Amino acid sequence: MSPVTIGVDFGTESARAVVVDCANGAERGTAVFAYRNGVIDERLPAPNSDVVLEPDWALQDPADYLGALQRAVPEALAAAGATADDVIGIGIDFTACTMLPTTADGTPLCFVDDLRREPHAWVKLWKHHAAQPEADLVNAVAAELGEPWLDRYGGKISSEWFFPKALQILREAPHVYDRAERLVEAADWIVWQLTGVETRNSCTAGYKAMWSKEAGFPSETYFAALDPRFADVVDTRMTRTITPIGRSAGGLSQAAATLTGLNPGTAVAVANVDAHVSAPAALATEPGTMLMIMGTSTCHILVGTHEAIVGGMCGVVEDGVVPGFLGYEAGQSAVGDIFAWFTERCLPPGYHDSAAAKGVDVHTVLMEQAAALRPGESGLVALDWWNGNRSVLVDAELRGLLLGMTLATRPAEIYRALIEATAFGTRTIVEAFEAAGVEVTDLVACGGLPFRNPLLMQIYADVLGREIAVASSAQTPALGSAIFAAVAAGSAAGGFDTIDAAAARMGGRGATAFVPDADAHEVYDELFAEYSRLHDLFGRGGNDAMRRLAGISRRARETRLVRS
Amino acid sequence: MSPVTIGVDFGTESARAVVVDCANGAERGTAVFAYRNGVIDERLPAPNSDVVLEPDWALQDPADYLGALQRAVPEALAAAGATADDVIGIGIDFTACTMLPTTADGTPLCFVDDLRREPHAWVKLWKHHAAQPEADLVNAVAAELGEPWLDRYGGKISSEWFFPKALQILREAPHVYDRAERLVEAADWIVWQLTGVETRNSCTAGYKAMWSKEAGFPSETYFAALDPRFADVVDTRMTRTITPIGRSAGGLSQAAATLTGLNPGTAVAVANVDAHVSAPAALATEPGTMLMIMGTSTCHILVGTHEAIVGGMCGVVEDGVVPGFLGYEAGQSAVGDIFAWFTERCLPPGYHDSAAAKGVDVHTVLMEQAAALRPGESGLVALDWWNGNRSVLVDAELRGLLLGMTLATRPAEIYRALIEATAFGTRTIVEAFEAAGVEVTDLVACGGLPFRNPLLMQIYADVLGREIAVASSAQTPALGSAIFAAVAAGSAAGGFDTIDAAAARMGGRGATAFVPDADAHEVYDELFAEYSRLHDLFGRGGNDAMRRLAGISRRARETRLVRS
Repeated sequence: MSPVTIGVDFGTESARAVVVDCANGAERGTAVFAYRNGVIDERLPAPNSDVVLEPDWALQDPADYLGALQRAVPEALAAAGATADDVIGIGIDFTACTMLPTTADGTPLCFVDDLRREPHAWVKLWKHHAAQPEADLVNAVAAELGEPWLDRYGGKISSEWFFPKALQILREAPHVYDRAERLVEAADWIVWQLTGVETRNSCTAGYKAMWSKEAGFPSETYFAALDPRFADVVDTRMTRTITPIGRSAGGLSQAAATLTGLNPGTAVAVANVDAHVSAPAALATEPGTMLMIMGTSTCHILVGTHEAIVGGMCGVVEDGVVPGFLGYEAGQSAVGDIFAWFTERCLPPGYHDSAAAKGVDVHTVLMEQAAALRPGESGLVALDWWNGNRSVLVDAELRGLLLGMTLATRPAEIYRALIEATAFGTRTIVEAFEAAGVEVTDLVACGGLPFRNPLLMQIYADVLGREIAVASSAQTPALGSAIFAAVAAGSAAGGFDTIDAAAARMGGRGATAFVPDADAHEVYDELFAEYSRLHDLFGRGGNDAMRRLAGISRRARETRLVRS
Repeated sequence: MSPVTIGVDFGTESARAVVVDCANGAERGTAVFAYRNGVIDERLPAPNSDVVLEPDWALQDPADYLGALQRAVPEALAAAGATADDVIGIGIDFTACTMLPTTADGTPLCFVDDLRREPHAWVKLWKHHAAQPEADLVNAVAAELGEPWLDRYGGKISSEWFFPKALQILREAPHVYDRAERLVEAADWIVWQLTGVETRNSCTAGYKAMWSKEAGFPSETYFAALDPRFADVVDTRMTRTITPIGRSAGGLSQAAATLTGLNPGTAVAVANVDAHVSAPAALATEPGTMLMIMGTSTCHILVGTHEAIVGGMCGVVEDGVVPGFLGYEAGQSAVGDIFAWFTERCLPPGYHDSAAAKGVDVHTVLMEQAAALRPGESGLVALDWWNGNRSVLVDAELRGLLLGMTLATRPAEIYRALIEATAFGTRTIVEAFEAAGVEVTDLVACGGLPFRNPLLMQIYADVLGREIAVASSAQTPALGSAIFAAVAAGSAAGGFDTIDAAAARMGGRGATAFVPDADAHEVYDELFAEYSRLHDLFGRGGNDAMRRLAGISRRARETRLVRS
């Protein structure tokens, strides 16, 4: 057997280990481990389930991550018919920012007996949104002090990111913060568990912790302005040594070898993020190629040769995607989530019955009907802001809009309009990059949606007026992690010395791309003009109904609480 | 037994006969006759079902109307335990404008052998919308010639009305038009069948045929400008003698007595329209009282003391509702229809299952959940234009809008937002009347919705900030027709000499009104401000997306036709 590497993709509900052939990228074996405690968003796990969480909290249990290494890695290896001797490297990717407080030796604080009932001692998952007040402070102080890094993040730091979460621990549970000798991304924590050595990767540091290769972290003055006790957060609980992705983080420790069944000394790649790690797997490492990771939400990754400020992008980080280049990230906060919302909450029984009768899922039934419609035929247009807007406008209070319904409007028409709206959202992002001088020459999609929803892909091609390629792998994050593992191993061990070399052999795209239809594109130009007008109208202050309604809604809920 | 009258309400799918006690308005017996051929909108009835209708056509079969008289009248009488001798009068109301071409003796042209396969020989139902090109012409020529009557109809004649339909016959089937010795409202045609004498009522003439007591019909010059062959339409196929509602049209003919089982000579009231005839049944004959007839759509009837021009009203007609007063009509083109659309096309299986399990309909389940929400809590607002807007804006191309969705939005929240949108639509109409100097002091509702949907009524009261009374009868049109029948009979026969006197004894309102909640009203003031901003934005040209999308949709459908 040719040498293999293992990529482990830590997702929101489960982790997936894939064994990949370094010679050709073939995925030889896969295993999935579902987290026992999943997303912890109502109460702590037993025996502490009397500890109830506030709204917007989302925690995880690091024991689940270790469980994944212990179970999924050997299972994937067995499925591949490979042994530990065949494995030259392991790489991992994670959701981000998912972070936790630990002791100096990396023990999660939630593993420490007297802290186990402290919610702030657990892992804060990426979608923990309870640090919004801290994010507001982070932004207000940055604006006030004219912090130069703010522009790199489209002018706004999200409540999902590292320092709002860290600051929330300090402000709400100073005794937990005191015990936190380290504050670390879960991605880096896993690599720490694998190698026994703490490293910090450039991807999460850059995109989630306001670090840049040139300027490092924000200043102590800035952190002190947030809270005097926070001034030294980097030097006391993090590190200024950031390792670029694409490097080796070291060899597998004896303890980790025991845990996973791999050989000690096996090369371990520096940690990475699920979206960014996918770029080489989809051959999206050339400047100008935009990778769209399309699932419940969409993440856009674009490699560039120079730093430009793009309104509302999530971040631009040197070495963030491919060493030596600028990595841009943008995102749509709800894509597949909107379609799931629609099928769960807006779809009448007939569609469910029809799907059951055919033994397919409802999306298949809807796709069939929606595909029979011509662009523009429904007279519908939507704004895809069911989960706010995190690109271009960067406003979580924005809401969805659907316009054009008549008594004849059918579910498949709404379904198609929602797909189109997300495509218009993507086009808005692509145009924002190009308007800022960052060329987008090439589009490639990966993630779950491109494989499940060909109609959606065709609509995207028609709306964008561009060909869209699709990664050949349906599990690009794990494949990407395996590619980075092969680079960590190096050519001497049977791997590769550069990302490009590894990607060329192990990554890939499907043979057929989605090609735009000229007639459809023409109609979509008109519909996109409507979308853009509504986008600017409701997004840029022409009509602030969404924000006002969000406020009215908040007050109504508060009144309810007071009354009940 | 005290004297009774019979009211027959001719609806869209069926006719309902009700026997009413003149002493107290008690509804002693009811019978419903479902039209055998219902709404004819795809092909003519067998044996001519090879004749396919164009889109937007909606016809009926006059034989169904005769069937209703023959079956429902004696059945209702039997149900009441009454005999023909107890009946002092009969009155009817009809949908409008529902019109047909006949020979000079009143024989419908579709009864004439060689015309039976001609679609234009059949009854054009109110919702026949295929005369839009003719309506456009009617409006354009009226504007060009500065026709003084145009203002009385809010500046726009609907394709549903009399002359567009008549002109469609002339333009598309001149040979049918040639054979049409009479063009007549179905309401008047029924009375003609009952009495053997042709009369024309002031209500349909005024609201649907641009007639006014003062100025009569539009001029020959105007009709000639539409089409030279149309110049003499009034004098050759109609009559200038218009009888005010509230009068007797004559006694029942021998033939009609045989048909219905009533006595010859029984007083027959002048024909009336379903909405307008309801006013006395709901005690809404005082100036300032607005009657809302709430069903699939809502019709607003308001009696006034002087003629004012209200933007977008459907019409103002002297003697149109109560003799001696101005009768105003306004309308919302979709109300219950929107909720039905929602429950049929947007409601997931769980709601249907839950309704089935409880043995109730889905509206009950939705109402229960929607009632638990506080005003504004959902963060949603909608524009109720699923069937265009026929009040204030008078634009059939306007479409529905729903704004504020998040991934957490639930069906009951959307349901409530749709109800609220129709309430905002009503408030817009009430405010338009008051802005034009026509006072609205009192609100009373009738029709199906007030009885089925108490949540809706409470929301209307909260949105309007006014008490809303409800008619005591669930079948106000038939009751109203019976009241007009009692007036046609006169006091000497045991009836009444005035509408007011008859209404006072036979009409009525429920004991409890819906009273606005002050806190809810305050929140609804804010939401109504949002509605109004969106209303003006999309309705008055600020953003013409709806009209443009309607155009794009039309083109897409045409392209499909060309291609297929």
